[in-house]
Amino acid sequence: MMSTDFVHHPFHDEDGDSLREECGVFGVVGARDAAAVSALGLHALQHRGQEAAGIVSYDGQEFHVRRGNGHVAENFGTGEAMAELPGTMACGHVRYSTTGGTGLRNVQPLYAELASGGFAIAHNGNISNAMHLRSDLVRRGAIFQGTADTEVIIHLVATSRYPTLLDKFVDALRMLEGAYSLICSTPAGMIACRDPLGIRPLVMGHIPEKNGKGAVVFASETVALDIVGANFDREVEPGELIEVDLDGKTTSHRPFTKTASRPCIFEHVYFSRPDSISAGQSVYSVRKAIGQQLAIESPADVDLVIPVPDSGVPAAIGYAQESGVPFELGIIRSHYVGRTFIQPSDGARTNSVSRKHNANRALVAGKRIVLIDDSIVRGTTSLKIVQMMRDAGATEVHMRIASPPTMHSCFYGVDTPERNKLLAARMDMEAMREFIQADSLAFVSIDGLYRAVGEAERKPKCPQYCDACFTGDYPTRLTDLAEKTHAGQLNLAPGKPEKVA
Amino acid sequence: MMSTDFVHHPFHDEDGDSLREECGVFGVVGARDAAAVSALGLHALQHRGQEAAGIVSYDGQEFHVRRGNGHVAENFGTGEAMAELPGTMACGHVRYSTTGGTGLRNVQPLYAELASGGFAIAHNGNISNAMHLRSDLVRRGAIFQGTADTEVIIHLVATSRYPTLLDKFVDALRMLEGAYSLICSTPAGMIACRDPLGIRPLVMGHIPEKNGKGAVVFASETVALDIVGANFDREVEPGELIEVDLDGKTTSHRPFTKTASRPCIFEHVYFSRPDSISAGQSVYSVRKAIGQQLAIESPADVDLVIPVPDSGVPAAIGYAQESGVPFELGIIRSHYVGRTFIQPSDGARTNSVSRKHNANRALVAGKRIVLIDDSIVRGTTSLKIVQMMRDAGATEVHMRIASPPTMHSCFYGVDTPERNKLLAARMDMEAMREFIQADSLAFVSIDGLYRAVGEAERKPKCPQYCDACFTGDYPTRLTDLAEKTHAGQLNLAPGKPEKVA
Amino acid sequence: MMSTDFVHHPFHDEDGDSLREECGVFGVVGARDAAAVSALGLHALQHRGQEAAGIVSYDGQEFHVRRGNGHVAENFGTGEAMAELPGTMACGHVRYSTTGGTGLRNVQPLYAELASGGFAIAHNGNISNAMHLRSDLVRRGAIFQGTADTEVIIHLVATSRYPTLLDKFVDALRMLEGAYSLICSTPAGMIACRDPLGIRPLVMGHIPEKNGKGAVVFASETVALDIVGANFDREVEPGELIEVDLDGKTTSHRPFTKTASRPCIFEHVYFSRPDSISAGQSVYSVRKAIGQQLAIESPADVDLVIPVPDSGVPAAIGYAQESGVPFELGIIRSHYVGRTFIQPSDGARTNSVSRKHNANRALVAGKRIVLIDDSIVRGTTSLKIVQMMRDAGATEVHMRIASPPTMHSCFYGVDTPERNKLLAARMDMEAMREFIQADSLAFVSIDGLYRAVGEAERKPKCPQYCDACFTGDYPTRLTDLAEKTHAGQLNLAPGKPEKVA
Amino acid sequence: MMSTDFVHHPFHDEDGDSLREECGVFGVVGARDAAAVSALGLHALQHRGQEAAGIVSYDGQEFHVRRGNGHVAENFGTGEAMAELPGTMACGHVRYSTTGGTGLRNVQPLYAELASGGFAIAHNGNISNAMHLRSDLVRRGAIFQGTADTEVIIHLVATSRYPTLLDKFVDALRMLEGAYSLICSTPAGMIACRDPLGIRPLVMGHIPEKNGKGAVVFASETVALDIVGANFDREVEPGELIEVDLDGKTTSHRPFTKTASRPCIFEHVYFSRPDSISAGQSVYSVRKAIGQQLAIESPADVDLVIPVPDSGVPAAIGYAQESGVPFELGIIRSHYVGRTFIQPSDGARTNSVSRKHNANRALVAGKRIVLIDDSIVRGTTSLKIVQMMRDAGATEVHMRIASPPTMHSCFYGVDTPERNKLLAARMDMEAMREFIQADSLAFVSIDGLYRAVGEAERKPKCPQYCDACFTGDYPTRLTDLAEKTHAGQLNLAPGKPEKVA
Repeated sequence: MMSTDFVHHPFHDEDGDSLREECGVFGVVGARDAAAVSALGLHALQHRGQEAAGIVSYDGQEFHVRRGNGHVAENFGTGEAMAELPGTMACGHVRYSTTGGTGLRNVQPLYAELASGGFAIAHNGNISNAMHLRSDLVRRGAIFQGTADTEVIIHLVATSRYPTLLDKFVDALRMLEGAYSLICSTPAGMIACRDPLGIRPLVMGHIPEKNGKGAVVFASETVALDIVGANFDREVEPGELIEVDLDGKTTSHRPFTKTASRPCIFEHVYFSRPDSISAGQSVYSVRKAIGQQLAIESPADVDLVIPVPDSGVPAAIGYAQESGVPFELGIIRSHYVGRTFIQPSDGARTNSVSRKHNANRALVAGKRIVLIDDSIVRGTTSLKIVQMMRDAGATEVHMRIASPPTMHSCFYGVDTPERNKLLAARMDMEAMREFIQADSLAFVSIDGLYRAVGEAERKPKCPQYCDACFTGDYPTRLTDLAEKTHAGQLNLAPGKPEKVA
Repeated sequence: MMSTDFVHHPFHDEDGDSLREECGVFGVVGARDAAAVSALGLHALQHRGQEAAGIVSYDGQEFHVRRGNGHVAENFGTGEAMAELPGTMACGHVRYSTTGGTGLRNVQPLYAELASGGFAIAHNGNISNAMHLRSDLVRRGAIFQGTADTEVIIHLVATSRYPTLLDKFVDALRMLEGAYSLICSTPAGMIACRDPLGIRPLVMGHIPEKNGKGAVVFASETVALDIVGANFDREVEPGELIEVDLDGKTTSHRPFTKTASRPCIFEHVYFSRPDSISAGQSVYSVRKAIGQQLAIESPADVDLVIPVPDSGVPAAIGYAQESGVPFELGIIRSHYVGRTFIQPSDGARTNSVSRKHNANRALVAGKRIVLIDDSIVRGTTSLKIVQMMRDAGATEVHMRIASPPTMHSCFYGVDTPERNKLLAARMDMEAMREFIQADSLAFVSIDGLYRAVGEAERKPKCPQYCDACFTGDYPTRLTDLAEKTHAGQLNLAPGKPEKVA
Repeated sequence: MMSTDFVHHPFHDEDGDSLREECGVFGVVGARDAAAVSALGLHALQHRGQEAAGIVSYDGQEFHVRRGNGHVAENFGTGEAMAELPGTMACGHVRYSTTGGTGLRNVQPLYAELASGGFAIAHNGNISNAMHLRSDLVRRGAIFQGTADTEVIIHLVATSRYPTLLDKFVDALRMLEGAYSLICSTPAGMIACRDPLGIRPLVMGHIPEKNGKGAVVFASETVALDIVGANFDREVEPGELIEVDLDGKTTSHRPFTKTASRPCIFEHVYFSRPDSISAGQSVYSVRKAIGQQLAIESPADVDLVIPVPDSGVPAAIGYAQESGVPFELGIIRSHYVGRTFIQPSDGARTNSVSRKHNANRALVAGKRIVLIDDSIVRGTTSLKIVQMMRDAGATEVHMRIASPPTMHSCFYGVDTPERNKLLAARMDMEAMREFIQADSLAFVSIDGLYRAVGEAERKPKCPQYCDACFTGDYPTRLTDLAEKTHAGQLNLAPGKPEKVA
Repeated sequence: MMSTDFVHHPFHDEDGDSLREECGVFGVVGARDAAAVSALGLHALQHRGQEAAGIVSYDGQEFHVRRGNGHVAENFGTGEAMAELPGTMACGHVRYSTTGGTGLRNVQPLYAELASGGFAIAHNGNISNAMHLRSDLVRRGAIFQGTADTEVIIHLVATSRYPTLLDKFVDALRMLEGAYSLICSTPAGMIACRDPLGIRPLVMGHIPEKNGKGAVVFASETVALDIVGANFDREVEPGELIEVDLDGKTTSHRPFTKTASRPCIFEHVYFSRPDSISAGQSVYSVRKAIGQQLAIESPADVDLVIPVPDSGVPAAIGYAQESGVPFELGIIRSHYVGRTFIQPSDGARTNSVSRKHNANRALVAGKRIVLIDDSIVRGTTSLKIVQMMRDAGATEVHMRIASPPTMHSCFYGVDTPERNKLLAARMDMEAMREFIQADSLAFVSIDGLYRAVGEAERKPKCPQYCDACFTGDYPTRLTDLAEKTHAGQLNLAPGKPEKVA
């Protein structure tokens, strides 16, 4: 009865040994088939969230909502689906798990009928004081349908006492802390905005039209502009709010005090597609540069450079080019990763790693190899892959990681395991090496990472990026966490970003 | 109502501009959970057929059949599915389209209750006189359920007048022409065999067990042995029939006059997974060697070597290593290829090529590039990809193909377009180059291809491989084709292989 | 994805020529498997609403919600469904169409997390000032999920400034006008109440347990008590609110000024099952008594008394017994009424009446007959049935209707066509007879109807029942209707019930 | 995934305490939308088989097949379904359980491509030597797809050595023993036939068309003619074979030696719809006459005559009219019978009888009643219904059964329990009365039953009907049963009908 989705994020195993971006957003104003454009755009953002997808369109009179579990193609591939979503403005969302199993209540865009009319919202990020705000709203009579932090924003808008919708919306934003890139639809047009630190990405472009007037497009990544034939204009700036009316006229607002931005550096390392331009740079080039840094910082005397597919490939190319060691596909990955398989009682290797990856035995047998991977989370995948290489006859297996050790949880929209499950939070370098049974292990340094993104180094007083997962240096307050774990213990002074160890 | 399968062969677009292997087969005798082992094995063969899958198990008393449209994981991923398939012997099949839309009648393994007991059969290949045999059987009262040529084999067995099942089976095989690798289950055990020319592959291995007695495994490719933890023992020889009883005892039979074998050379070029060992050679190494041949035969004065992902990657690595030009990912492919998307009326590029491939603009802009692809079928994909590279700013786009021109249809189990749709059958080299709008175009030579597989050259009198798709040199009679197109015209003398232009 | 429900209300055709009760409610406190008890109870109320069903259970810690389109058995027949609904308290709901096609948002019981904790509500009836209240709530920032009037009640509770939940609930009820029988679950127990006029029914009973302590049960009709093995204790009184704590202790409240009750008289005529006890009387006996009244008021000189099945059967038995004319099944109804069938272009009679009803030709041929039906709505069904009898050879066809002419719409929870579609609102008696092509036509008189329910006559100043569909005498204000049609025109004085013609 | 069918045969409980007709057949030649006509016709025959339905149409060029589990309306209610079934000739089938759970292989009409062209067959009845014939066919190389006895007929036709299809078909029929009413489609037209004894019914009619030329229709019962607007022409005679060509020209053949016919008398008692004409008589009138016979043979001194709904109603009307005791609905049946409900651990009555039937307490309390039911199979339903009446306060409960005791299994297409589960085969009259706990129990006599169908009495030497379920007097050989239970024991002399005790 359910549409079944058997194919998973190509970069992950199902054992939870991964980090997961939680969302991608897309919006378009002024396209003849806005929902079809949005479906394509979301399809290009599918890697940012594969559990559910939704589109809300507006036809000048009414809003139309369609949401479902599963991939974009499953929910929006048919003409029937598009016929349900008429209009020239649409916004859409892809997301990871609908936590709590409560069906579609949390699938975005959320939609509500406010006194001012319909209001749709798609959110990438995480509000770190959502529980706090929610409690207060419920005390005042608000009725919540789901558990998503995004719903808090709608209630803040609905109950704001400012006169205009834009004022109400800004009033709501001011109460938020954390990370948010938002795309909203109203009967007057679209609103796109990014939190003051610009933690999550948001870009803007336009589809040129023959008859002169084009459509305005917003998306989490530039690849979504590419697929819909849009030109990339610029990023939505951190702290910027852009209004687009139904005629495509755009107005930029700056409702926040200007602060230094802190975009997520992990977007470069892992989340964004390599063909995206993020924070002004080619993600592919950055990843290659990380590999080159790694080769400089941590060379390995080996015969072959082998990527852990697919996310380790660009860094491995960089590593190979810098080191002069040949780049070879020593691990072949299957494109068909079933969610579950029954474990035979015989000797079959049925873990998700071996269902997805197979050693290219003829290549690696008798060779010394260095494996290049993007990150280590729990370490279980690395262990299995090292073992797979040894079983295939590799005589030495070295591991190089294209990011610094992941030691802290993310509270800004990335689904990380709890801290005590992160390998790098539990062990020192030698213990990690031993755990994954590699002959040597090295991570790129934090400054090496900053160099790869074109900085001279990380400025410790005022880091150019959010790198809290590596450093614990959280750029915002974390009210919900503080309240959950007792403010006293965390000594979270109001107004001041805190480092949570 | 149906489980929907939105993700397609990673190597294809949906425009039919591709060749498609039609099947993969797997069998195991003596494993405690034979169906679960088979599900894993078929999963590793998923690239050989993605439209439908089936497994038949035998528990010593009864046969159990389960077949379905869709991927292996969709049909065999659950404990319920496995519970329906008890027993220590099982055979399975993955296939491409169930032609005719007649539901599950053609999904294999086929199963029938013969006078001798249950009989299951899984077939990779194509019987080139199936229509001829079928007409004769129907005239004698046989009732066919489906359109698959495989059903002919069952009826030949059922109506054979030999006394034992093995005799009946050999009697049936002797009437067949064409390509077949077969795995059959009977109450006495398993029968695996390969046609006299060995056109389609079939390998044999065993799962070692701690208590000394292991399971015997057959599969289309060695990757299916890897995933179930089996050791690769040897290929089933062309013209060999191997009986395995329920205790795992194997007996080899040679029911045919010995002839020189002619395995399909395209398995190396395209069908087999790069981590498989085919005809004694690493598929990955052969593909790299083809790339090296190409670089020697047809160098290009360029800045970057760019594979058309994913199937062009090994040849591109070989080409880059031979030429010294850097290997780079200039095309990024999405792993989420929805079957259909509605075409917006705006400027979005919604063809399947652009939904699956995106240019890495930052990399290719301003560069001279050479693209490496495995083959050209209709040419439409090549045209789109060349265009995509030019749109992204490449200044020169050269194309190199890791196979000779595909000029003839296959009648041995590969779904090729009709001859008049094959670009190389319609145009000369320069016209092809013009059609795909490349700055230069070259294919590896037929002798270059043979050198890559380790031969000195192709022996024209007695070619070492079936290369009919390149040469039109068909190694068997093609009775059905001859009868369809009037024997007179083709002058097909009985018993003599014919070249069909 | 959808469960498909092909079998419809046995008493209706699909042409909309019918009245439809909109809901049934059920609740139980103190039963070991409260959800399973509720599923059975709702199953017995299925005739009151067949489009959707829901149950909310409470296990002492948490609320569990399950709702779905389709029949109770489809949604709650499995052990898995029950396992999702643990606890000893549960309330449930069956309903007619989820108007607007917006999926499950309007399926009840509705559930919300209030500041006071979880709150589930199941509602039978209709709030005649719901739109008015809703507009006001939205203006104050409330966000509505669905279009059901019931959601208004939750928001009124959530935003009430009274201190306790019970006070908030009563505060909310005081703002309502219209008809409501409500069953609510809170962490403290169950609340059941009925509007001051008692328009919709609600009964109370208990399941005796061996160990002394039983469960308290509420339901729309006594048949739901029968099926769960509960004894019928009494009706919930009009204007009464009963609290039941988790230990089963009940407390009765009277939050409204006492007024004369006005239960819906149509429950006797049509909605309730004949084996229910409604307003202290056997529905079956009342219907037979109506038939007897009809025979006295409007005799017919005929050979056979024939019920229009199934709802006309009890009245036909009464008519036959009073008149002495034999009761016979001249119309046979099929129990399989498919929602749709394609109309062949040939002569087949494919309207829903002929798919559901067939003439017993051998019986009626050559006979004079009187048909007994419960009501006439649009008249289209009556026309077809009269025609069917004539086609079968009946020489005279008389029609007797076991209710007065239905001339006015219901605003209290019955889905009636708009007034201008009601046959009796458009035509006089002779025109109606001519329309349905009967030889004679008669309805029971309004006083005859009151006599059948045991009254001497209808008291015009203070009618004992709500009979607005027959008389236009609406017992409450109809604010939404008045605002929709301009208060001025209707001259609706505040506080005074109005007759809307 | 599956369409779910939650509503069951109205006459049955799910405890298996019932007899079940196994099939209904329908065919039409010369109708513009033959499939739509067939869908309606099958819908009217739904009571004869509710588990699966199928239609095969022929458009002059090709046959089109559609079959599915579930009701006719579920499978053939949509325009899409009809669009798959073009043509002016169609035949269809409804059936009970697809025994063995092997999906759709046994759902009829069966279809095969023979040397002579397409051949579709729909069968009502049971071939009592099917296993015997099947074994022989398999030995000769036939491959069976399903387990249905009907498939034997196709293989007999396919392997017959007669020259024409009609000759082959008659050749096949001559080998059959048992009961069969068959409707077959071939490229030349339709063939309808009935076994020599005419055990199962088959009627013939035509749809009159305005332009003079009508369609020919065959069906199991006349109600299927009524619903498609066809006139009833006559029964297909026992032993008659009627050919209809595509122009509607009919030819009658008599391929068998003339014998006295033996139609199934139970069709009158139970299977056929009351509005059908069976063997020249109104089923409703026969059932009333049985009730009258019962009242004469076994009067009861009671206050009320109460039918067990719905199948007992006509007999109860007859009993009431003959006895002068009032007919009343003392048991109300629900039209919503869910397949399963979870048993609460509390006191709820959840057996299928109480989910389907409820006592009309107000009516029966304090009364002496006689219950009229059609038959007793295992007796468990009768026990529950008697108990229900006593619980409702009936002071005396008498039971009268409108058929003689069912003591023998049927081998002609009715799904009866094994003999040792039939109450009447296990107990004498007094023991049965005690088992069901009635105050008295009586069955109509076998001669009374014959009188009700218009005979003076049963002719013991040459009974006018097949009444084997009451008498054990089987009118054909039962080869499969004999071989299964050892011919020696049964002493089955060839050619002579045997009484199997």
